[in-house]
Amino acid sequence: MTISKKYWNSFAAKMNPYTPGFQPEADPQLIKLNTNENPYPPSPAVLQAIQNINSDHCRLYPPAVWDDLRQAISTGYAVPVETVFCGNGSDEILSLILRTFTMPGERMLLVDPSYSLYPVLAAASGVQTVKIPLDTDFQIPFNSLPQSGYSVAFIPNPNAPTGILASPGKLERFIAGFAGIVVIDEAYIDFCDHPDSSSCLSLISKYDNLIVTRTFSKSFSLCGLRAGYAFADPSLIAGLLTVKDSYNLNIITQTAAAAAVNDMLYMKKNAAAVRKTRQTAVKRFQQLGFDAVPSQANFLLVRRSGTDMEDLYNYLMNHSIHVRYFSDLPDYLRVSIGTDLQMERFFAEVEHYLA
Amino acid sequence: MTISKKYWNSFAAKMNPYTPGFQPEADPQLIKLNTNENPYPPSPAVLQAIQNINSDHCRLYPPAVWDDLRQAISTGYAVPVETVFCGNGSDEILSLILRTFTMPGERMLLVDPSYSLYPVLAAASGVQTVKIPLDTDFQIPFNSLPQSGYSVAFIPNPNAPTGILASPGKLERFIAGFAGIVVIDEAYIDFCDHPDSSSCLSLISKYDNLIVTRTFSKSFSLCGLRAGYAFADPSLIAGLLTVKDSYNLNIITQTAAAAAVNDMLYMKKNAAAVRKTRQTAVKRFQQLGFDAVPSQANFLLVRRSGTDMEDLYNYLMNHSIHVRYFSDLPDYLRVSIGTDLQMERFFAEVEHYLA
Repeated sequence: MTISKKYWNSFAAKMNPYTPGFQPEADPQLIKLNTNENPYPPSPAVLQAIQNINSDHCRLYPPAVWDDLRQAISTGYAVPVETVFCGNGSDEILSLILRTFTMPGERMLLVDPSYSLYPVLAAASGVQTVKIPLDTDFQIPFNSLPQSGYSVAFIPNPNAPTGILASPGKLERFIAGFAGIVVIDEAYIDFCDHPDSSSCLSLISKYDNLIVTRTFSKSFSLCGLRAGYAFADPSLIAGLLTVKDSYNLNIITQTAAAAAVNDMLYMKKNAAAVRKTRQTAVKRFQQLGFDAVPSQANFLLVRRSGTDMEDLYNYLMNHSIHVRYFSDLPDYLRVSIGTDLQMERFFAEVEHYLA
Repeated sequence: MTISKKYWNSFAAKMNPYTPGFQPEADPQLIKLNTNENPYPPSPAVLQAIQNINSDHCRLYPPAVWDDLRQAISTGYAVPVETVFCGNGSDEILSLILRTFTMPGERMLLVDPSYSLYPVLAAASGVQTVKIPLDTDFQIPFNSLPQSGYSVAFIPNPNAPTGILASPGKLERFIAGFAGIVVIDEAYIDFCDHPDSSSCLSLISKYDNLIVTRTFSKSFSLCGLRAGYAFADPSLIAGLLTVKDSYNLNIITQTAAAAAVNDMLYMKKNAAAVRKTRQTAVKRFQQLGFDAVPSQANFLLVRRSGTDMEDLYNYLMNHSIHVRYFSDLPDYLRVSIGTDLQMERFFAEVEHYLA
């Protein structure tokens, strides 16, 4: 059926919406390594917070600026509360950044490949994207990044879907010289071998054009709750507060996310387990003749000379294992890091396929 | 402290953000009649749905197009599923409507007074608002509403903060003649004496420029969960689906809202109780010398000759009763309908004040 776009604005009419990874029906037989979810449960304190929700929580408006959650993040990361913003997933924060700091017709700087949501958000705001190709080893070509002519640059670190980590030193030099706002999307930072020294968080007090975004989805195992957060100079946070919907975060997510950040050790333990499995998985891939991009995230981008990756992808799906295949990276598969047991079954099926 | 707006876009820099009603700390002594929350709890099925949330719900991405909730709404309202949209509160849906169907510089038609959020959303999108004054008795002057030159018209029905209901017949003639999209915001429709015949819902199959928005906040007692929904021609819903964030509604809200809509009778019983208390309250106001605007919503806009409403507002607040005072409607107070007991205490304090 052809859908009439008679009333759509010209931005929407030209948009190709973001394609989320396939979400199969819940099935204990199925191994889901396609959307970078955490294979481990969230802190028991999160479930307890959800259990404690009562009818008054439901009935009354939630705090408009997420007081308890914001305070918990401020304490957990040792930053002033006015440098903290919370959103309905970091997706909402990324969208709000465009709606607050760019105008239609302005330009956004991206590296390519990176997170495929960014150009979709730009298109929705009528912002043009310019994509600078990564080096052949997927490193950011810092020397050839432009410094002016852009309202905003979005850089995921570690990058997705490669998992490559850029050094904060190189990023700082870029931020210092860039005329617009630099968004460092640290969705996967907790999976790095050294999260604290890999993060740009400490730079927010130094640069008023830097926004560091984070999410509760990945390391905190809370994709389902839609909670993202960001750190920036209070002048940027004030802009986001002005443009956001009055009550952008429901009370349950606020309460559960605060419980998660108050149990940071639990998250770190899960992230360490993912890191360990990632190291083992890299070795297994190499033993089977794959190249794995050196990832610091909870996924591996892999390829194998002479193997048709789309065919392997379909084979795995037919054997109840979901991974991600991107048509614009046809030589690669992206495999999220699951539990050790899930990875065992994944590699057994890959071996079957190759045999 | 002066906040630098150096990086803000020109829409954000000019915005005055929406002012939500004061949300005091939870206190059993306090009577909260200031933000039109429902005084009765949501269906027990909602609390049960929240209790049933497990760690896999938290860990995995939620359905991107809210399959179960959308189906429940489709069934509950007997409309095709492709005419249903769900959002993070109806606020998000109203914002998305502007971002999907208007361009900066275009115009939005409003009546005045109406819901004060609309011009804030317009400003965020760079859309100009034109406000047509209501008649002296707060009725919409349908004969003087323009038919062209506007991308969109937002009309709450019943209106807020007056509670006045416009007839669907008059609204239909306006929709039929209007060149842009008409949004009928039915946040309060369930509190009408005759919700079904007062709603414009049946018109969505007839007019491809009509969007009817609803919320779970008011009649379903779920302000805290941030769930809104909308009905429209599939061509408009497809536009909203294109522009929305991938996962705009967390899994708990999806599940809890589906439970609420599946227990429609519970909501109707609560709405009937609010209606009954509203009727009693109107009489009490009249006995005390107040004029009450004839409201079909869960609030009453009242005034009293010779009484300083701001002073009464402050007096009530000092006695732990919160109502709403709007500086642009200085002769009035807006009082949400509470339980009978809460209204008794409210009227007792008003009598004290007047004595």
